Amino acid sequence: MKKIAALRGLEYINGHKFIGIGTGTTVEYLIEEIGKNRDKYANKIFYASSNKTRDLLLRYNLNVSEPDRVLDIYIDGADSVDLNFNMIKGGGGALTREKILAYNSKYKVIIVDETKLRKNIFSFPMPIEILPFSLNLIKINLKNMNLEYKERISNDKLFITDNGNYILDVNLKDVENPIEIAHKIKLIPGVIEIGLFENLADIVIIGKENLKIEEIKKSL
Amino acid sequence: MKKIAALRGLEYINGHKFIGIGTGTTVEYLIEEIGKNRDKYANKIFYASSNKTRDLLLRYNLNVSEPDRVLDIYIDGADSVDLNFNMIKGGGGALTREKILAYNSKYKVIIVDETKLRKNIFSFPMPIEILPFSLNLIKINLKNMNLEYKERISNDKLFITDNGNYILDVNLKDVENPIEIAHKIKLIPGVIEIGLFENLADIVIIGKENLKIEEIKKSL
Repeated sequence: MKKIAALRGLEYINGHKFIGIGTGTTVEYLIEEIGKNRDKYANKIFYASSNKTRDLLLRYNLNVSEPDRVLDIYIDGADSVDLNFNMIKGGGGALTREKILAYNSKYKVIIVDETKLRKNIFSFPMPIEILPFSLNLIKINLKNMNLEYKERISNDKLFITDNGNYILDVNLKDVENPIEIAHKIKLIPGVIEIGLFENLADIVIIGKENLKIEEIKKSL
Repeated sequence: MKKIAALRGLEYINGHKFIGIGTGTTVEYLIEEIGKNRDKYANKIFYASSNKTRDLLLRYNLNVSEPDRVLDIYIDGADSVDLNFNMIKGGGGALTREKILAYNSKYKVIIVDETKLRKNIFSFPMPIEILPFSLNLIKINLKNMNLEYKERISNDKLFITDNGNYILDVNLKDVENPIEIAHKIKLIPGVIEIGLFENLADIVIIGKENLKIEEIKKSL
């Protein structure tokens, strides 16, 4: 399901030169397919939303640049997405760079399998990237808001993002106004970015179990 | 002027145990005075808003802790402040940690000389702390908002904050709705914090040229 969504997504990037690439398993299918056809993509400039994606692109000898301009197109997966082009992202920990690239791209393609399409995107915990200095205080702030969270762990230690920060996964599943609460969380000092991506997709490509594809496009 | 404001500010922290300390020349007078009376402050726990402040406190053998709880009181200077308890901070580059500590303190004391009291706080450029990854894109975003900015430079290189990030100083002096624009800047992906501190003071202590002191207290 992920792979067929990725292959369809590839069709969207073919006409473009400055291409942002997300992070995650669905995107890895995409990169693999690009790598198999390396010559076709040799004159394109790729922008990576994580060190992992950068390393994969470089393995295929593709051109990878630091962010230096508005991108033609951005393609990425999502942890959950709804029909209003809202998403939760950051399951892989790359939410901040993903949002930076998506925000600065003219067209945004999201590729997912059908399990990611949710009525309530907050059924997936919302990751937030936070400054290490603020860890204990943000935990207090979230508790004071009556919110549950988990520290993101990796190899028995706090997970560290490519930007050198920590991640908390905040449970907003049963909260009454999750988007409003997410906005409040974003304004807590020490919070760098939240995993709520509002309206940051122009098309959602959904790979289904029957291997069919559904495309939900934003009307212009 | 700075020194008399600092000495008056000291009176406010004397009754407290968990004390947050800002960054800058006015605060340095305060730390010096605390250091001179080290025994009086030996049982207090200090929280430093910058590596520089931490090092000064440690030089006097004071107890310095990583942020681990809500503080009793926070004391700091400001680059500009108005009668509504709004400020611009971050001239020293410590705005994010300063805001984290101020936000998590029960009482906030601002000590300034009278030149810092402004009708328009934005007559001082607003510093923003940004992720290095996003530098070029945020410059594009600010240009698209028709805003002027300068990269913060130190020793001919980009200034690096204690959090490992960059600073841009954004000119909002002649902008029509600077607070609204500042809020928009805060939401640009890659922006970690802005130097606008809204309503984050409970008392402003102003040292005047005639060596008198004016105190502006928030009514409860």
